[in-house]
Formats: sequence, C-alpha cells, structure tokens
Amino acid sequence: MATIDAPKQVSFQQDAEVLRKACQGWGTDDKAIISVLGHRNAAQRKQIRLAYEQLYQEDLIKRLESELSGDFERAVYRWILEPADRDAVLANVAIKKLSPDNHVIAEISCTRSPEELLAVRRAYQARYKHSLEEDVAAHTKGDIRTALITDSFGCFLQLLVALVTAFRYDGEEINTRLANSEAKILHDAVKDKKFNHEEVIRILTTRSKMQLMVTFNRYRDDHDTSVTKHLQGDSGDEFLPVLRTSVRCLNDPKKYFEKVLRNSIRRTGTDEDALTRVIVTRAEKDLKDIKEVYHKRNSVPLDQAVAKDTSGDYKALLLTLLGKQD
Amino acid sequence: MATIDAPKQVSFQQDAEVLRKACQGWGTDDKAIISVLGHRNAAQRKQIRLAYEQLYQEDLIKRLESELSGDFERAVYRWILEPADRDAVLANVAIKKLSPDNHVIAEISCTRSPEELLAVRRAYQARYKHSLEEDVAAHTKGDIRTALITDSFGCFLQLLVALVTAFRYDGEEINTRLANSEAKILHDAVKDKKFNHEEVIRILTTRSKMQLMVTFNRYRDDHDTSVTKHLQGDSGDEFLPVLRTSVRCLNDPKKYFEKVLRNSIRRTGTDEDALTRVIVTRAEKDLKDIKEVYHKRNSVPLDQAVAKDTSGDYKALLLTLLGKQD
Repeated sequence: MATIDAPKQVSFQQDAEVLRKACQGWGTDDKAIISVLGHRNAAQRKQIRLAYEQLYQEDLIKRLESELSGDFERAVYRWILEPADRDAVLANVAIKKLSPDNHVIAEISCTRSPEELLAVRRAYQARYKHSLEEDVAAHTKGDIRTALITDSFGCFLQLLVALVTAFRYDGEEINTRLANSEAKILHDAVKDKKFNHEEVIRILTTRSKMQLMVTFNRYRDDHDTSVTKHLQGDSGDEFLPVLRTSVRCLNDPKKYFEKVLRNSIRRTGTDEDALTRVIVTRAEKDLKDIKEVYHKRNSVPLDQAVAKDTSGDYKALLLTLLGKQD
Repeated sequence: MATIDAPKQVSFQQDAEVLRKACQGWGTDDKAIISVLGHRNAAQRKQIRLAYEQLYQEDLIKRLESELSGDFERAVYRWILEPADRDAVLANVAIKKLSPDNHVIAEISCTRSPEELLAVRRAYQARYKHSLEEDVAAHTKGDIRTALITDSFGCFLQLLVALVTAFRYDGEEINTRLANSEAKILHDAVKDKKFNHEEVIRILTTRSKMQLMVTFNRYRDDHDTSVTKHLQGDSGDEFLPVLRTSVRCLNDPKKYFEKVLRNSIRRTGTDEDALTRVIVTRAEKDLKDIKEVYHKRNSVPLDQAVAKDTSGDYKALLLTLLGKQD
C-alpha cells in the first residue's frame, strides 16, 4: 500500500498559485511546496504542472530547479515527475555515471511490472532519443574499457540488456514441472560456480515473475537455502552482485527495498541517492508495506530512522512522503 | 504501397452473410470467400468476424478451418488474422518446428516497426501464455541439444533474443560520428572473421534502423562492398546466416522480401509457407513496391510467376492479394 495521502478533490489552479507564490520574492517557501506536492498523486502532479504552465507560461519543474538546491531539489525533481519518466531519468543517471550503477538498472528492470518497464522504455526514448537498451549496452561496454576485463563480461552485458528488454508474461499460468527442472539447472550452476551460464541468464531474464517464484520456492525446498544465499562468491567483477540484486528484486521486492533503505541509512554518511530513490518511487506503490518490513527487521520505525539521518526541507519532504501527518 | 483493394464502405453484416452462405450446403463457395475477404483490410476483417460471431454464434475462423484445406486454408487463416496476431502465430510455428526456422524470427523482428514488434509480443503472450523471448530462448536451446554444438551458440541465442526484445528508437536523430566508428567495428569483425563478436550483436540489435542505415552506407563507402556481402563464410551453424538475414531485413526489407519470394518460387517444389507468408504480411503494407522490385530483378511480373507456380483457390487468393482485378 501507498503512504502518500492525496485528497480526492484538488484544485490544480489553486495548487499552481500556491506554488507560484512559494517561489516568488526573497527565498522560497519550502513548507508550502511540500504541503502541496507531498500530498498529490502522479496524475494530480501532472495536472498541476499543466495548470502552472497555462497560468504563468513557464515550466514548473524548471522554476523549482532554479529555486531549490541540494538533496531537497533532487528529491522534489524526482518526485514531481511521472513514474515512467522518473525511472527513465534514474536509469539514465545510473548509466551515465563514470562507473555505471548497474544495480539501479537491475532494480528498475526487475521490480517494475512488464507494462511499467515498457512505459519506462518509451519515456527513455522520448527524453534521450536513444533506446534504453542501446545506452545500457554502449555504456557498459565503455565502462569495461577502463576497468578489469573478465571472462564473464560478455555475459554481464547480455544479462543487463536482457533485463531491460524483458517483457515478461504477466498472467497466472505457471508450469510446475518446468519450475522443478529449472530449479535444478540453477542449482547445477551454483554447484559448479557457473553463475554466468547461458541457462541461468535465460531463466532469470525470460520467465514470468510468477513462474520464477515457484522455481525459487522449489529451490529452497530442495536445498534448504534460498538461491540468493547461494549466489555468493568472488568473481572479481559486477556480474554476480548484479545477478543477486536481480534475483532479490524478482523474488521479494519489498524485502529488497527494505535492505536498500537500511544500507542507505546505516552507512557512515547517508546515501541520499538511494534513500530518495526508494522513497519517491515507492510512496505511491507499496511504501507502507516496506515500512512494516523495515520496522520488523530493525526494531525501529522507518520514519524515525530517516528523521535521525536527514535534516531540513529534505527531511520534511521525505517524512511527508512516508505518510507523516502535518 | 499496398496491393489490396478494399472499398471504403463495407456492410460487415452482409459480408458475414455471404461467408455463411459460402460455407453452407455441399462443398464451399471458395470464390465467394476470396471475393469478400480478399478485398477487405485488417480493420474490416475484424469487424466481419465480430458480425459473424454475433449473427451465427460461431467463430468464423473455426468454421473456415473446418471447411477449407491445404495451402488455401492456411493462406485464408493467416490472411484473416490481425497483423500482430498473425505474426505471433508465424513466430510460434517457426519456433515450434523440429528445427526452428530462425530466419522467420529474424524477419519478423527486423522488418516490423518497433511499435509493431511490441504489438506482436503482446499478441504472443495473449495467445500462448508465454513471452515470445521466453519461447525463442527455450526452443533454441532445445534445438541445439540434438544438433551440433558450436562455439557461437551462446552468441546465437543472444542474437535471437536481442532481436525479438528490441524496442529500437524510431525517431529521426542520427549520429554520424557514431556511424563511422561502428562501421569500423563491423569491418574489424569481418576482417577477423569474428562475426559473433559482442559488439556486432550490440550494434545490430540496439541501434535505430535510421542509424544503422547510415552505418551500413558508411561501410559501403569505405569498403566498396555492402556489409551483407561481407557476412559470408562457413561457420557450420546458423549464426552467420541468421545474422545476414537480420542485416538484410534492417537494411532493405523490400529487397529482402523480393528475394524470399524469388527463392520460394524458383526452387523445385514451391515453398508455399514462405510465399504465403510474404504475400499475406505485405499485401496491406508494401507489396506493390516489392512487386516492382521483383519485376525489375526477374524481368517477369510477380503475379505471372506466382500464377505459373500455384493452382486452384490458393492461386486465386494470392493473385487477389497481389492486386489482380476480378
């Protein structure tokens, strides 16, 4: 369930006026910005942007970018975008890093529904005039040029491209016999430490999430351990870590997001990128459930942990998105 | 341009009545079936199916299947389907063959527009409860078990899956510098006979068709020969032939289709599958242009060549789809 709390009836024009006023004069009224945008869902935010554009002939996003700064600006910018467009931006930022953040690519590919991922690919093309897979492939290649070239690099590229291009079957039909045989294939690969085997990539990138769930359960039943636990080792490159991230995202996205949040806070120096990313992308989806998983796992409520680790307007926005009542 | 000649105003109910009458009593009135369905576009055929279902509570396609037989039945069945659904059927038939016909997979992936290919993937899932890439990957694997396992098999699988999952950028923007450097990468691969190099697969499966056109032209300018001509050799497996088919489909689909038609007729024993496939899939698209290419290349009109090689109702339907006036 979602955490944000958006009223059903909203006057987009009035919201646009509040935002305009918040941006005028000396300084910015960040509280007003949070109290409007922090309580509007994606469809409403889009209408507010349109109303703002019509009223003032300027782009609300551009105006906010020029008014705000730092983590708060980045969080507002990410929050205000439509989900598919936001994912396109997140993917592009991850790809264009000097050392591409392939875990974000795996996260977006494996936690979004097939239709959502398709919408991300459309949004990516509209924004960047390239396909997502084109940029993933070209930049992964670029990355490796300056890095250690390992045997499994070809497979790594194949894994990433297959993850972003997947359009998995999203229906109810599963095949138990297939799950049994593919659980065995996965286990054979683990046993032989051939994590980058063609078959492993094929299974993880093409089967439906429902089918994979049955396969992973079968694996656990047969071997008393989850496949994730078995995907450990030191391959000296990113293949295995990204493979593990993919399996965790496919298998139990809420648990995965809890861990990303935990790591983003726990580390010395908060990882604001990760913290913001999970909160803005999940607030309208399942952040309530993720909060529960977090509380259970860490014996402290997520909002409390976030409040302790952040400050100012950035903190206020995150807490609003986490469902804090004003 | 299309060859079929569909009237703008059509009474779907009347068409359904004609088809019903054609199927009743002793024998079937094949001429009536051809004169209706052969002159209706995809949207109209869909409406006729709906009208037929409403009037007679039976599925027109099932009825036709039970009334007709042989090449004529197969051609009517393929023609009547909506284009994306038809491609899904063609792909599935190609995949499920004892020895999968991977050229058909490459043809569908590379000659359809990005949006059309996406529609095929949707139609495939609706029909078969699997994703297209899932079946391509699983069956290619199955195929190779009983065949010769070669070095390039992993790359072959990668190529096929990347072709069907591609959602290429379809806009106007091209990058000439990139085309120059990637033309060089392709030529280096050709020079070293490393056709299955990661980079070759990456370029051919992720770049936009417009971008590839510039790259292929650059290749020809630099080396006085087309890349297709250079993609020859005896690798002992299907990788190179399918790669060549892909390049030809991406580079000049009309010329590609002309050659498929030529081969389907020229061989001893007509290849009805290929002949039907090209005519039904292109009749509403660019079959008029393909006819011109054919005539120029073979000094004989395509309809004449088809008429010489086929007979009966099958011949009558193909000629109607080729634009012959009754």
